Amino acid sequence: MTRVHNFNAGPAALPLAVLERAQRDMVEFEGTGMSLLEHSHRGKAYEAVHNQAGALLRELVGISDDYEVLFLQGGASLQFATIPMNFLHPGKSADYVLTGVWAKKALGEAKLLGKPRVAADTSKDGVFTRVPRQDELNLDPEASYVHMTTNNTIFGTQFHYDPEVGKVPLIADMSSDFMWKPFDMNRYAMVYAGAQKNIGPSGLAVVVIRKDLITTGRKDIPVILRYDTHAENQSLFNTPNTFAIYMVRNVLEHVKENGGLAAVEQRNRAKTSLLYGALDGDADFWRCPVERESRSTMNVVWRLPSEELEERFVKEATKQGLVGLKGHRSAGGVRASIYNAVPLESVAALVEFMATFRKTA
Amino acid sequence: MTRVHNFNAGPAALPLAVLERAQRDMVEFEGTGMSLLEHSHRGKAYEAVHNQAGALLRELVGISDDYEVLFLQGGASLQFATIPMNFLHPGKSADYVLTGVWAKKALGEAKLLGKPRVAADTSKDGVFTRVPRQDELNLDPEASYVHMTTNNTIFGTQFHYDPEVGKVPLIADMSSDFMWKPFDMNRYAMVYAGAQKNIGPSGLAVVVIRKDLITTGRKDIPVILRYDTHAENQSLFNTPNTFAIYMVRNVLEHVKENGGLAAVEQRNRAKTSLLYGALDGDADFWRCPVERESRSTMNVVWRLPSEELEERFVKEATKQGLVGLKGHRSAGGVRASIYNAVPLESVAALVEFMATFRKTA
Repeated sequence: MTRVHNFNAGPAALPLAVLERAQRDMVEFEGTGMSLLEHSHRGKAYEAVHNQAGALLRELVGISDDYEVLFLQGGASLQFATIPMNFLHPGKSADYVLTGVWAKKALGEAKLLGKPRVAADTSKDGVFTRVPRQDELNLDPEASYVHMTTNNTIFGTQFHYDPEVGKVPLIADMSSDFMWKPFDMNRYAMVYAGAQKNIGPSGLAVVVIRKDLITTGRKDIPVILRYDTHAENQSLFNTPNTFAIYMVRNVLEHVKENGGLAAVEQRNRAKTSLLYGALDGDADFWRCPVERESRSTMNVVWRLPSEELEERFVKEATKQGLVGLKGHRSAGGVRASIYNAVPLESVAALVEFMATFRKTA
Repeated sequence: MTRVHNFNAGPAALPLAVLERAQRDMVEFEGTGMSLLEHSHRGKAYEAVHNQAGALLRELVGISDDYEVLFLQGGASLQFATIPMNFLHPGKSADYVLTGVWAKKALGEAKLLGKPRVAADTSKDGVFTRVPRQDELNLDPEASYVHMTTNNTIFGTQFHYDPEVGKVPLIADMSSDFMWKPFDMNRYAMVYAGAQKNIGPSGLAVVVIRKDLITTGRKDIPVILRYDTHAENQSLFNTPNTFAIYMVRNVLEHVKENGGLAAVEQRNRAKTSLLYGALDGDADFWRCPVERESRSTMNVVWRLPSEELEERFVKEATKQGLVGLKGHRSAGGVRASIYNAVPLESVAALVEFMATFRKTA
């Protein structure tokens, strides 16, 4: 088989070694006479996998016992609803930092449940080209929480600092850049991420949440939507997505074997330098609309001089085995998602293709 | 590899051919140069799988265009909450038929959101040994809906008739017996099922829901929890559990190739006759607590003369490659879950083991 260069925005590339391991375990898991998929979520074989996934996440990120690590269904989109359901108490407000489409969706769910405030909005005519600076955050010290999106897949922007929000709990949607580098969990009361970008397949959200925040959650909402339910049951209140958690375990083990998050960051920065370098080297042709200090290391977006050229670029790239480069339907242009599992070789192949394309354009 | 005889209650046995297919597609899917897991949920390759899964479900069950088929995350447990959130309007009531632990959990979520009624409860001291008869259903003609659980995994009971509930929408949790035989979807306004018993791995709920019921749903609840959201977006409002939907597609294709639901029923009835026959053949030793007309075809539960014997039975069976036979922790005893993918040979092996065990007990 020839592996294509996969620039999909999510579900996205996974490490080949992890896929090969899943292939080996698919019919029979560790000599148990059945597939991993056929194991009870309350049996010993799966339990070991479940606990390893949590322990590896704690170890790699450096998460203290003040936090719970939860594996939940429903992706980040369900978190958009359960965060205000649990923590936006009647009569109270919460601050939302608007940096893109997903941040707006999170705000939309909160509006149905209370009266959230917009703490920052850097868009012009619906387009975001940067994230706000610290001094642009208009924060309410009485807010129940501050919600932010660390990386914005569609507009290709990313926070490169941890906002200072005082005593208010900071909640971050890290779906598209979770574990792209080491980070200080203690700056956040809660982070969450759909697994399908950096750490696994779709159908799973990882939630890291401070225990004292959990205890403030409302008790009069459905049991399945309460964080304390899942914390008390080690994410086994109901049958979890066992396969996705198994895959996250395997991805994290792979990360650990390859140098941990410091090495992940190094590889990601090498890819980013290469690709942004190519764009900046011919900035009249490749036009990156994102302000330099907000550029995403995960989703690199750019435009060509015309939509016709963009279309031709994506089409010819696909023929060369460079797939997933079409910009989001709402933004247009070109987008290369270069998540953790995308190898440097794929970015090098893309840059080489860009040079060839440029000559004939 | 020697496959064990898998009597797990869910996640449970899957057809070997389906697992082998997943193994083939795990590293490269259909010559696309990437795994099925790495495909975008909005790309052509996955889209075909997604649509096939829905079309096969419609074809095998015989679902008219009056219904939507949805693939959602969160399992049946999330449905326990979203059903009353959508359909239990303020000031209105809903009828719950109590037949076991899961029915009670569904009622519990509804109680947090409104004032549901209990339409039947056949338990004595918390134990259920049968489902109610039609004439025992105490129904409110003004109820928003009637909720029932068709099969009860823990107590081993099952409905063998479709309740008549007049004009009130009938909603059935079919998690543990969905598609065990042909059934008349038109008797129900909505059925739902966690996939991990009869049709796939965990992390997915299939929902079949009448379009006119969807339109009555509340609009002031979070968008992600509204059925109309998922219906309007063909279950692609947010990233779905693509792998689980792929597996359901493969299981359903396997069912179709092997004679459809009529053949599934025939195989299930053969297994049931064999196992209940063995229990009834020595009813002083193997004691099935379930009344005959309520016996489950999916989860067969029984007791032995003592807890010591039960423990020995499960332990020795496991050594013989018959796994998952321990009764639910809340009920004790022995339980054999014989879902669609458990072959007749596994039940025959169990019955043979029972005969041997009986001689030495």
